[in-house]
Amino acid sequence: MKFKVGCELNYEVSNDSTFILNICAVENEYQQVIDANLQIKPDRDLEEYIAPHTENSYLRLVIPKGKLEVSYQATVNLKHSVDNPDEISERLPSDIPLDIIHYLYPSRYCQSDRLMKLSQDEFGNCQPGYARVQAVCDWIYDKVTYISGSTDSHTSAYDTVTERAGVCRDFAHLGIAFCRALSIPARFVSAYAWQLQPPDFHACFEAYLGDKWYLFDPTRLAPREGLVRIGTGKDAADTAFATVFGAVQLNNMQVYIDCLDDKSLKTKDMAIANT
Amino acid sequence: MKFKVGCELNYEVSNDSTFILNICAVENEYQQVIDANLQIKPDRDLEEYIAPHTENSYLRLVIPKGKLEVSYQATVNLKHSVDNPDEISERLPSDIPLDIIHYLYPSRYCQSDRLMKLSQDEFGNCQPGYARVQAVCDWIYDKVTYISGSTDSHTSAYDTVTERAGVCRDFAHLGIAFCRALSIPARFVSAYAWQLQPPDFHACFEAYLGDKWYLFDPTRLAPREGLVRIGTGKDAADTAFATVFGAVQLNNMQVYIDCLDDKSLKTKDMAIANT
Amino acid sequence: MKFKVGCELNYEVSNDSTFILNICAVENEYQQVIDANLQIKPDRDLEEYIAPHTENSYLRLVIPKGKLEVSYQATVNLKHSVDNPDEISERLPSDIPLDIIHYLYPSRYCQSDRLMKLSQDEFGNCQPGYARVQAVCDWIYDKVTYISGSTDSHTSAYDTVTERAGVCRDFAHLGIAFCRALSIPARFVSAYAWQLQPPDFHACFEAYLGDKWYLFDPTRLAPREGLVRIGTGKDAADTAFATVFGAVQLNNMQVYIDCLDDKSLKTKDMAIANT
Amino acid sequence: MKFKVGCELNYEVSNDSTFILNICAVENEYQQVIDANLQIKPDRDLEEYIAPHTENSYLRLVIPKGKLEVSYQATVNLKHSVDNPDEISERLPSDIPLDIIHYLYPSRYCQSDRLMKLSQDEFGNCQPGYARVQAVCDWIYDKVTYISGSTDSHTSAYDTVTERAGVCRDFAHLGIAFCRALSIPARFVSAYAWQLQPPDFHACFEAYLGDKWYLFDPTRLAPREGLVRIGTGKDAADTAFATVFGAVQLNNMQVYIDCLDDKSLKTKDMAIANT
Repeated sequence: MKFKVGCELNYEVSNDSTFILNICAVENEYQQVIDANLQIKPDRDLEEYIAPHTENSYLRLVIPKGKLEVSYQATVNLKHSVDNPDEISERLPSDIPLDIIHYLYPSRYCQSDRLMKLSQDEFGNCQPGYARVQAVCDWIYDKVTYISGSTDSHTSAYDTVTERAGVCRDFAHLGIAFCRALSIPARFVSAYAWQLQPPDFHACFEAYLGDKWYLFDPTRLAPREGLVRIGTGKDAADTAFATVFGAVQLNNMQVYIDCLDDKSLKTKDMAIANT
Repeated sequence: MKFKVGCELNYEVSNDSTFILNICAVENEYQQVIDANLQIKPDRDLEEYIAPHTENSYLRLVIPKGKLEVSYQATVNLKHSVDNPDEISERLPSDIPLDIIHYLYPSRYCQSDRLMKLSQDEFGNCQPGYARVQAVCDWIYDKVTYISGSTDSHTSAYDTVTERAGVCRDFAHLGIAFCRALSIPARFVSAYAWQLQPPDFHACFEAYLGDKWYLFDPTRLAPREGLVRIGTGKDAADTAFATVFGAVQLNNMQVYIDCLDDKSLKTKDMAIANT
Repeated sequence: MKFKVGCELNYEVSNDSTFILNICAVENEYQQVIDANLQIKPDRDLEEYIAPHTENSYLRLVIPKGKLEVSYQATVNLKHSVDNPDEISERLPSDIPLDIIHYLYPSRYCQSDRLMKLSQDEFGNCQPGYARVQAVCDWIYDKVTYISGSTDSHTSAYDTVTERAGVCRDFAHLGIAFCRALSIPARFVSAYAWQLQPPDFHACFEAYLGDKWYLFDPTRLAPREGLVRIGTGKDAADTAFATVFGAVQLNNMQVYIDCLDDKSLKTKDMAIANT
Repeated sequence: MKFKVGCELNYEVSNDSTFILNICAVENEYQQVIDANLQIKPDRDLEEYIAPHTENSYLRLVIPKGKLEVSYQATVNLKHSVDNPDEISERLPSDIPLDIIHYLYPSRYCQSDRLMKLSQDEFGNCQPGYARVQAVCDWIYDKVTYISGSTDSHTSAYDTVTERAGVCRDFAHLGIAFCRALSIPARFVSAYAWQLQPPDFHACFEAYLGDKWYLFDPTRLAPREGLVRIGTGKDAADTAFATVFGAVQLNNMQVYIDCLDDKSLKTKDMAIANT
């Protein structure tokens, strides 16, 4: 599927500040960036770094006092691997590829080490494989309420599992924490999300099952087929759309995504991977 | 300097268990492993993975019910870069290499996002550079008491900064959290530590200053020149000497390190790097 | 029912220390202390304070360096109010006596303010009254595992609700937190507990329903009819069996309770109150 | 000194709700309520409860869907005990009156049990007595920044001691936690505060020294002589100006206080008690 995505960010900068932006669609085998355009006012040199493995694009800007306007736009073609959930099995710890085993370890917002017993109690008897991660997502969807503004940048899975409210990043963090506690590698995905209302940067997660990273979105707010990947990481700490060193204020942010071709989704109950 | 290092780990395994061990000295430009010997009883295939960038060695073993005896021994030659602390400056966020900028982000045990103001208040007026990180270490040494057994695997920098007691990993986590909150990249190092009493796996940290990762040990329990590196990571979550999936009990653990050549240290007040 | 209860506490005192002990059975309308004997070595003056409302007995001792031996023994007669659970209703916040409304407020170990949504989700649809509190206890019994030594004096309901392991005080704290979050007044009870194995000080809780404080014990480790009350409070902070100011070590502690008359219990499924 | 105090609270009530208000000036030996007027629209019966010991006035209202307007106004005469700080000593735990010893125990927002070592390290060498509590207040004033809206109803002393920002209740909670960790009884005070800008309900704390409860305000935002007491408790959990059971929205709140006589303060550096 082909999408047009983009964002506009307007900042007021109080003194010389360094921005690290992670807003560009990643380019990988399953996500082709057909064209992309980035405009920065004031016109400054920018430095780009593509992280190995994740392909995350980090842009660094150094901006003096004044205004900063960032405008990004891209056309992206997505390929999906669409699989039958019933055929997707879990890898045992004896069999998980060692280069991804670190996605089992706890991270800032996903304290899986503190959710071990709860995870076993709630999901230990689920059918192993895709169905177990789906059960995790259903649990979160059923028990956690999406409430805009209910959490902040310090909120973690350990909070959400009890307070039972949050936004997309909290849903993703809890899903990741549960999976890791179940010995299923899991990681955070930030994305442009088609049909998300209101439009915003979105967060979901991937679990490693069989031999792929499958997408899961416990918020159910947008179809997985319409997620244009921006960043992949252990949790939101790795994929903030903007990390700022300095005194700035975000005055306006707009995020958009349109589907450029056939808009029918036929894969609702299928497993979807695109990394 | 040349060291002989090693460890013996004896486990009782209650049912089929997967071990991921991170006990081998890393091999890199500054740390040459002259010879190494690893013995496992029962004799099982083991799988090794060397992580890119960190060179951490992860060994995976799948062990049936019964006993597991692991014995590792190596001879290691260390090279150090010894620099004048006064000449080591901080890199501004505008200038930190983008491939290490993720070492500024908070992690499971180093919630730098919650220590921002405290770090600025305590260290914001320190002389930038090596001296500032040294001030962080002095603060920790002065205010946190080393008490064996006072903390557990859930304890994080956010706890230690208030409870003021811990072991080497807690000291390192707090140092890392302060540095990141000060926009100084910092990471965790696990090591065999010469002269550490009683002998044990040790933990310290590195901060990126100038163009090197400099070693710091706020416990002051062992000379930095005698640290034979095992693992490097965002925090202890990445470098556990053993991650076990299954029901096992560690019955005995011995860790040792000897210096094989000139034992005099002439670099006490110098900055030391070896990555 | 009549019980003989007692305890022996042996301390090593490193320097002048003040002890505040809360080990004596309370005397109230429902719990008659027939005889009681307290012996202290060394022989020191002791000061007793009976708190109003709760009738808790606090004993203060000032002990010099050396040993302290405390021996307490009492014969106690218990009266119970035994009621039909089906007839015990909840009081609405508009109707709860104002002098106990503070038992709705969060306390150190019972952060009911953070469990509001979870409590509503889990118990909001239960039948109001005794049945709802029973559902809280069943939930705790089903989901939290009693593991000796799994928690410490800092552990609170906010931890236990996720970590799902603890000892009697953790079970009680979680029960209290849930009740308060449901607008049901609840409070902590420490007690000598007949048939508790191994013998120890026990903790359970009371919820205010109808016009009485009914006893609940989510551990199911001892019959409620055999609880000889020592202390009543907002949580364990109010009812520690010993609060010590100074450097001491508890070398030995023995707790015992025997039933002196008819040992048959006929009130297993009944609601029991004795305050 | 004589003050005129009052408040106006306007709520939108979505369904039948119970309010417990703690907005009236307490009446005690040191605070005489000369006249008081409370108006409620709609006109409903209200129930008042005066708590023993603290004299806190709790008003209960049951309000149907619609608007609630509360208007309170009182004239209050304050007497102060003004003492020389140098002559105010600490009571040892062996000597603290047993009926207030519970003010040494940790509470929801004042986790003194986790601040023991920090408190000793920071204040253990201070001169015992009033000077030590003054040192606590100076520490808080120096290190914690008053930032409106920086915290919420879950924020506790354990957070504030690290995050170093908060509002008056956070300042008070941290002061109380430090004092209790130092074995000095301490409690929370809510008040109308003369000269507070902008006008609002204020929070400070009292520490028990010598034989009185002395007032301390680490925010330094208002003179202690102008504090007209509303509530006294273990922490903010006991003294919320409004506890609401139901779905309501506070649309408007106004708080005011005027001094009706000689406005000169001559007791700036003195110790002040009025309970």
